[in-house]
Amino acid sequence: MLSAVKRFLIGRPLKSAALGEQKLNKLKALAILSSDALSSVAYGTEQILLVLVTVSTVAFWYSLPIAVGVLFLLTALILSYRQIIFSYPHGGGAYVVSKENLGVNAGLIAGGSLLVDYILTVAVSVSAGTDAITSAFPKLHDHTILIAIILVIFITLLNLRGVTESASILAYPVYLFVIALFVLIGVGGFKILTGQVSPELHPTLGTPVAGITLFLLLRAFASGCSALTGVEAISNAIPNFKDPAPNNAAKTLILMGSLLAILFSGITFLAYYYGIKPSPTETVVSQIANQTFGRNVMYYFIQGTTALILVLAANTGYSAFPLLAYNLAKDKYIPRMFTMRGDRLGYSNGILTLGVASIILIIAFKGETEQLIPLYAVGVFIPFTLSQSGMIVKWFREKPKGWGYKFIINFVGALISFTVMMIFFITKFTQVWSVLLFLPIIVYCFHRINRHYESVGEQLRLKAGEPAVLIEGNVIIVPVAGITQVVENSINYAKSLTDQVIAVYVSFDREDEKLFEQKWKSWQPDVRLVTLHSHYRSIIQPLTKFIDTVEHKAAESNYWVTVLIPQFIPKKSWHNILHNQSSILIRAFLLYKRKVVVATVPYHFQK
Amino acid sequence: MLSAVKRFLIGRPLKSAALGEQKLNKLKALAILSSDALSSVAYGTEQILLVLVTVSTVAFWYSLPIAVGVLFLLTALILSYRQIIFSYPHGGGAYVVSKENLGVNAGLIAGGSLLVDYILTVAVSVSAGTDAITSAFPKLHDHTILIAIILVIFITLLNLRGVTESASILAYPVYLFVIALFVLIGVGGFKILTGQVSPELHPTLGTPVAGITLFLLLRAFASGCSALTGVEAISNAIPNFKDPAPNNAAKTLILMGSLLAILFSGITFLAYYYGIKPSPTETVVSQIANQTFGRNVMYYFIQGTTALILVLAANTGYSAFPLLAYNLAKDKYIPRMFTMRGDRLGYSNGILTLGVASIILIIAFKGETEQLIPLYAVGVFIPFTLSQSGMIVKWFREKPKGWGYKFIINFVGALISFTVMMIFFITKFTQVWSVLLFLPIIVYCFHRINRHYESVGEQLRLKAGEPAVLIEGNVIIVPVAGITQVVENSINYAKSLTDQVIAVYVSFDREDEKLFEQKWKSWQPDVRLVTLHSHYRSIIQPLTKFIDTVEHKAAESNYWVTVLIPQFIPKKSWHNILHNQSSILIRAFLLYKRKVVVATVPYHFQK
Repeated sequence: MLSAVKRFLIGRPLKSAALGEQKLNKLKALAILSSDALSSVAYGTEQILLVLVTVSTVAFWYSLPIAVGVLFLLTALILSYRQIIFSYPHGGGAYVVSKENLGVNAGLIAGGSLLVDYILTVAVSVSAGTDAITSAFPKLHDHTILIAIILVIFITLLNLRGVTESASILAYPVYLFVIALFVLIGVGGFKILTGQVSPELHPTLGTPVAGITLFLLLRAFASGCSALTGVEAISNAIPNFKDPAPNNAAKTLILMGSLLAILFSGITFLAYYYGIKPSPTETVVSQIANQTFGRNVMYYFIQGTTALILVLAANTGYSAFPLLAYNLAKDKYIPRMFTMRGDRLGYSNGILTLGVASIILIIAFKGETEQLIPLYAVGVFIPFTLSQSGMIVKWFREKPKGWGYKFIINFVGALISFTVMMIFFITKFTQVWSVLLFLPIIVYCFHRINRHYESVGEQLRLKAGEPAVLIEGNVIIVPVAGITQVVENSINYAKSLTDQVIAVYVSFDREDEKLFEQKWKSWQPDVRLVTLHSHYRSIIQPLTKFIDTVEHKAAESNYWVTVLIPQFIPKKSWHNILHNQSSILIRAFLLYKRKVVVATVPYHFQK
Repeated sequence: MLSAVKRFLIGRPLKSAALGEQKLNKLKALAILSSDALSSVAYGTEQILLVLVTVSTVAFWYSLPIAVGVLFLLTALILSYRQIIFSYPHGGGAYVVSKENLGVNAGLIAGGSLLVDYILTVAVSVSAGTDAITSAFPKLHDHTILIAIILVIFITLLNLRGVTESASILAYPVYLFVIALFVLIGVGGFKILTGQVSPELHPTLGTPVAGITLFLLLRAFASGCSALTGVEAISNAIPNFKDPAPNNAAKTLILMGSLLAILFSGITFLAYYYGIKPSPTETVVSQIANQTFGRNVMYYFIQGTTALILVLAANTGYSAFPLLAYNLAKDKYIPRMFTMRGDRLGYSNGILTLGVASIILIIAFKGETEQLIPLYAVGVFIPFTLSQSGMIVKWFREKPKGWGYKFIINFVGALISFTVMMIFFITKFTQVWSVLLFLPIIVYCFHRINRHYESVGEQLRLKAGEPAVLIEGNVIIVPVAGITQVVENSINYAKSLTDQVIAVYVSFDREDEKLFEQKWKSWQPDVRLVTLHSHYRSIIQPLTKFIDTVEHKAAESNYWVTVLIPQFIPKKSWHNILHNQSSILIRAFLLYKRKVVVATVPYHFQK
């Protein structure tokens, strides 16, 4: 039954050999790996204007030089990540780069903050998309959390079905959004060029603004940089690309960068030229679309695709998180289960963990995840800085041909990323201080897990020269509760393995004890019976005491002790409550507290 | 840790030999077994007046003849249960009497309705007591449910500590209540005799009342009979008495009956003479106490002990339920666990079940359990009727010396009980119809459980003449995941038991497969290795398929198959999430789906 539901939801299992078919071509990869970055266009410009409006609307002209700064950082990041793709073609992105060049802790900080970041991405973007939906249909407003959870479950299932399948479905909305924005920018630009828009709506470039400070401009710049979250996703997900994976990944990255640059500058310019003010009731993109088209079908098309891409931005996390988790698990910093491919060849444990964690976040923040956005931006710029610093060290250490140029690119990237990160910490400390608390905790956990795995590996390793455990014989202890078929089976089985069989009977009552001893003698005269009297009506206590005694003696002559326990397997599961099943308790107790082998003889009831 | 908490709450375990010390003398038994019956005095009269007031206050004089009727029934019940005690000195009350004389189904109906009834008793009486508390301290009103639950937990713990201990604590409030009511009746009677109470407050006996009907009088009588719930408890709990148990139980029963008769008639007479009208804001007992003493210390003493006894009425259920459950479990109609004595020699599973079930009822009805009272009265009169009909049959069948007198007692008892039951069904059908629904369901469940146990017993029984299972040898299959100490241990252990050891390796990857085979050959050349390729990355699937093949072959030559599975036992419990523990899954799957013995070799990590 359960497996039928599973099959319906995520499809039939795929053979390992089908892995190649699960790879992405450039167009599909662009769709699912860039949705996070592209969706930032929907709010990046607005973030800049929201800071500038605190001074005056005249200051809006600063949005243009700030956008140039963001574009400059974008270029540096794209070029820099392109170099990372070719240097680390097996993926892993910031984690691998930092670990290899800056040391384990740097890698773990980068990996840890990205792991958390992808969870935040999913929670934040699904909540944002849900808000867009409930704004359109106010009746749904009471069910915001439920809708967000359903969306997360939907995206999780889609990803469990496999990368290609989710890419095929998710590519449409992404490209529709890109087309919609291109049309918007094109028509808007055409109207400006043909003079249909009054040039008096916007302040002249270079107008002096009273009260503007460097701090404020830096803050606006940092806010604008939130449009750059998500550009690292491709470098994490190289193994998902069709061969030659690094080349395809690099081309996809450049394509994504170009789209992002065009859309971001277009929207920023239109916002400036139209003189748009950020409003709590209408987004900047909506205002631009409204002024360009009025409330016609094109306007709703832009709004609809924007809502969709906000939800789908979550999907980037689903592509990058499981691969990052795989890399961390392979290095034994997180549980090994993240290295296992599921039925549909995705790393399903990573996908499920991401889904569950973001649902928990959505519930904890009651769907109001806006307060998490600064946290999430910081969580991206930490690995940006680390990975590019790592590349600097790499170039300096290896000094390949023409390294100077590569060095400069990563140096500039590292410098700006670091600056943005510091601006975040300085200007939004009250919102991001928790990063400084939980990153060390995460890294500590990574190390604890790693230490455990290493110590287990050490304990399991065969030591050359050490003599193997010597087993000269076996004693089998059979706890018996009566004279039944089950006991007969168990005794016969034990006798077929060794001569040293001891039946043990725990009695609560002296008379019953004597009676049982007599019955046993006439039934199994050649099997030794030991009766234990239990004063406190416990079976485990006298039994373990007896087993300890036997074990002690057996150890002297290198005998191993096995306890044979019958277990009833009822035909219907409700029957389980009708049987004490003390055998299950006894087994667990013996395994965890003693070092004896416990063999379970199943007895299947016929009805 | 857990066991320390347990020891603190319920005390250190007692030896089985200490059972004799856990028996009750008459005074303590009276306290804990009669609290239910005696507490009815607090509301019995009120129930009668509540019906009569619907006609006219003049009708109140009918409360006296009705009380005489109730006393008559009480006498019949007490004499009748006294006969049951001597005829069935091992307890079990209505269940045993009905089962032995009227057949199994009658017994199960009596037993089932009493089981449910004791749960209702606990829920109803604790809720009533809580109401009394929150009436006195209105601030606590918002926490009614919580207080009721805490009281149930308290009484449950007290009973888990053992019968004598709870009796020692609970005896005080019961006797204080009895003393308080005696003082009230004594002082009230003195005031009437000395003419301090105006005789004009009450209607003259025999005053004609317009609109009075037989139906109404019957209803008032039935309501008054709710004061008789709980009189059967002693007959269920005979094994709790000191020897000679039946004599002591019979004496306690007579004592209880006398107390009940005196208190009930006293309160009813005072209520009549004072002309008290039932009021929604003040109980009848409170009005009598107020008129007798005014609001002085004596008044509050009566109110306090009344609240206490209402809570403690629950305790009667705790004495009777586990013993009744024991009887049903002994006859295999409910799970066997109800026959086991806990650490303190009480039937703790019964006590716990009663506590949990009544807490669920309290939560389900939000502490407003008054609506359950009619249900609970019907649930008592069904077993009353059945047990006395059973006694009638018994006397008629056995015809002992002087059976005519005994026959008449039970006949009268049965007749009145049956009449009261029918009055309940006719006058309060809307409140009690559910009994007709759930009693058959309960009886059906009893039969289903019984059938299962019988069939299990049949399956386990050794069949004379049937040859024992022949085991000519053993094949041991050892699933291996690598070349480690754990595998070495398991292989050595298997080799010490049989020559037929097969190591099985499940591979996901052809290359790895070859590599492993080579390594194995040089490491364990004399142990056969079978490698299974898993297309779908499942371990269980190829493994069970292989086990099936081996089992099929082994069966031909009477060989048994054992699967040896290593299980990691980490030192710290959080480490469990770091290991796949697929061995646990494999074990469960094999036990439930196949018929192979599964032996678990524990591997305890050192750190």
